[in-house]
Amino acid sequence: MKQVIAITLGDISGIGPEVVLKALKNNSLIKRNNFLIIGSKVALPQDYQDCLFIQDQEDLDFKKYPINFLDLDNIKREDFKLGEINKNCGRVALEFIKKAVELTLSKKVVAIVTAPLNKEAVNLAGFNFSGQTGFLAALTETSSYTMMLVSKRLKVALVTIHSSLRKAIEDISIEKILVTIKLVNESLSRCFKIKRPRIAVASLNPHAGEGGFLGDEEKSFIIPAINKAWQEGIEVWGPFSPDTIFYKTTKGEFDVVVAMYHDQGLIPLKLLAFEEAVNVTVGLPIIRTSPDHGTAFDIVGKGIANPKSMIEAIKLASFMVNKI
Amino acid sequence: MKQVIAITLGDISGIGPEVVLKALKNNSLIKRNNFLIIGSKVALPQDYQDCLFIQDQEDLDFKKYPINFLDLDNIKREDFKLGEINKNCGRVALEFIKKAVELTLSKKVVAIVTAPLNKEAVNLAGFNFSGQTGFLAALTETSSYTMMLVSKRLKVALVTIHSSLRKAIEDISIEKILVTIKLVNESLSRCFKIKRPRIAVASLNPHAGEGGFLGDEEKSFIIPAINKAWQEGIEVWGPFSPDTIFYKTTKGEFDVVVAMYHDQGLIPLKLLAFEEAVNVTVGLPIIRTSPDHGTAFDIVGKGIANPKSMIEAIKLASFMVNKI
Repeated sequence: MKQVIAITLGDISGIGPEVVLKALKNNSLIKRNNFLIIGSKVALPQDYQDCLFIQDQEDLDFKKYPINFLDLDNIKREDFKLGEINKNCGRVALEFIKKAVELTLSKKVVAIVTAPLNKEAVNLAGFNFSGQTGFLAALTETSSYTMMLVSKRLKVALVTIHSSLRKAIEDISIEKILVTIKLVNESLSRCFKIKRPRIAVASLNPHAGEGGFLGDEEKSFIIPAINKAWQEGIEVWGPFSPDTIFYKTTKGEFDVVVAMYHDQGLIPLKLLAFEEAVNVTVGLPIIRTSPDHGTAFDIVGKGIANPKSMIEAIKLASFMVNKI
Repeated sequence: MKQVIAITLGDISGIGPEVVLKALKNNSLIKRNNFLIIGSKVALPQDYQDCLFIQDQEDLDFKKYPINFLDLDNIKREDFKLGEINKNCGRVALEFIKKAVELTLSKKVVAIVTAPLNKEAVNLAGFNFSGQTGFLAALTETSSYTMMLVSKRLKVALVTIHSSLRKAIEDISIEKILVTIKLVNESLSRCFKIKRPRIAVASLNPHAGEGGFLGDEEKSFIIPAINKAWQEGIEVWGPFSPDTIFYKTTKGEFDVVVAMYHDQGLIPLKLLAFEEAVNVTVGLPIIRTSPDHGTAFDIVGKGIANPKSMIEAIKLASFMVNKI
């Protein structure tokens, strides 16, 4: 029996539904897993029928269709317009995720792939919300987690994620760096089956701080964190000058780079794998991946959204499921 | 008559002399220009004789040799060891540059390519010194200048250069961004013959600050600088999210990215053009390029130093000389 991967539709006024349906036309995905799309039927083209529609999770049935669609029926078609920020879409997007987490924790599905949502829409719906990752962490009562971005040539994990550059510098601590190193080490060995992951840590400052001449965060935070991780038996190196470590890692010297702030990790990742990178939330008790793009309101309904990153996100979830 | 490009040997206990001699074996360079190496003869292998050695600039003569070597005779072989920081090497490296600037200002040579030196060695020699670029600016009485990194697929200019990330954020101002945009615009149109350069400006914060949610430097400094540059007739766009603008620029949407801090520009540049990028000092009254690497003390004397970046630096100087 093939394992079931859940896919949440995200903000249905964005490109989520389009990339999900496009991705699931990919036969190699269907061969490996069954899929449960969690969403609202009104988000789909009216003539879409390549799945079994169900309204109750007890009706899951993959005998005839490798794709089931759990219709939460929580929004009407006239309640939103494609390509526009809308609080109703924000609300239902969270409901899709909640249901997916519930099904994962009850072992009905083995992993979740989440289509993008729009933060502003969720906030308009009355939730104090900073992103799907934090929401998933709250639902699963997870306190330590981080974002790892995965592409063919480069994996990057982030110590700080969505904050201004100024705040990212303030937020860096021995504890945060150490936790990230440990989460990444655990994820690479457990879910990626890399026996002894070789982890590189980037410096915060240029040239690894040039011995303190260009900043002291390396001495104060990064080096102590690396030393502590070593003491716990993790093979972790650095801090490396940010302008060389990504190149070295793509050449195979390391399995992953721990980056100190969003753009330090995302600039090289997206340069090498534009629209192909996948976001993995590391530290959750469930497997969760997502494409590395947003709702792209500007191109909704034109049929031109690129499903590549969604396909890669599903592939990676499948890979991780089969490794565990 | 071919124009003469000066090449300074840099710190002669580093890989400078090796990469210069290796680069000048390249016939395509010799076809286009004559070269004047400025250094000390003791830095060369004893059997080197592919040039005319002179001790006085009045003796320049390219009839027989396309390479002249101006021996400043300012250090003895026993005064330094290969691969070691040494104040004598720091001192003579500056003397090479001084001479090169003098010859450029008196029109004996048309451009300078500088091999790397070691900042610590120069400081040990008693100079308060932060880099060749600042030294060249002082010698030519230049107050506004910046660093542009050039590779085949990407050009990047920096608003702040060698400072900690924290200080880089503090140093950003409307004035600094505007000056960088203007210098880059001037250089691309004058030296690269791009009629109307399309300049992209990266944001400081992730996602271009997300409307102020992730930092306010975009609103306070970057957008006003872009608006002022527009008013002066420069085609400049942004601020763009740093994790997408470098990709877009490699795809031809812009001619150059103005980056806010060292690693923002250097990470993507070195990822795409490791050991091949060239540093151009923009804003000097003279043409100056340099390879994008250091003295590499760890590999001196092994014959394995890669001359690629030096070759590219010479090619670019030659290109710029011929455009003007």
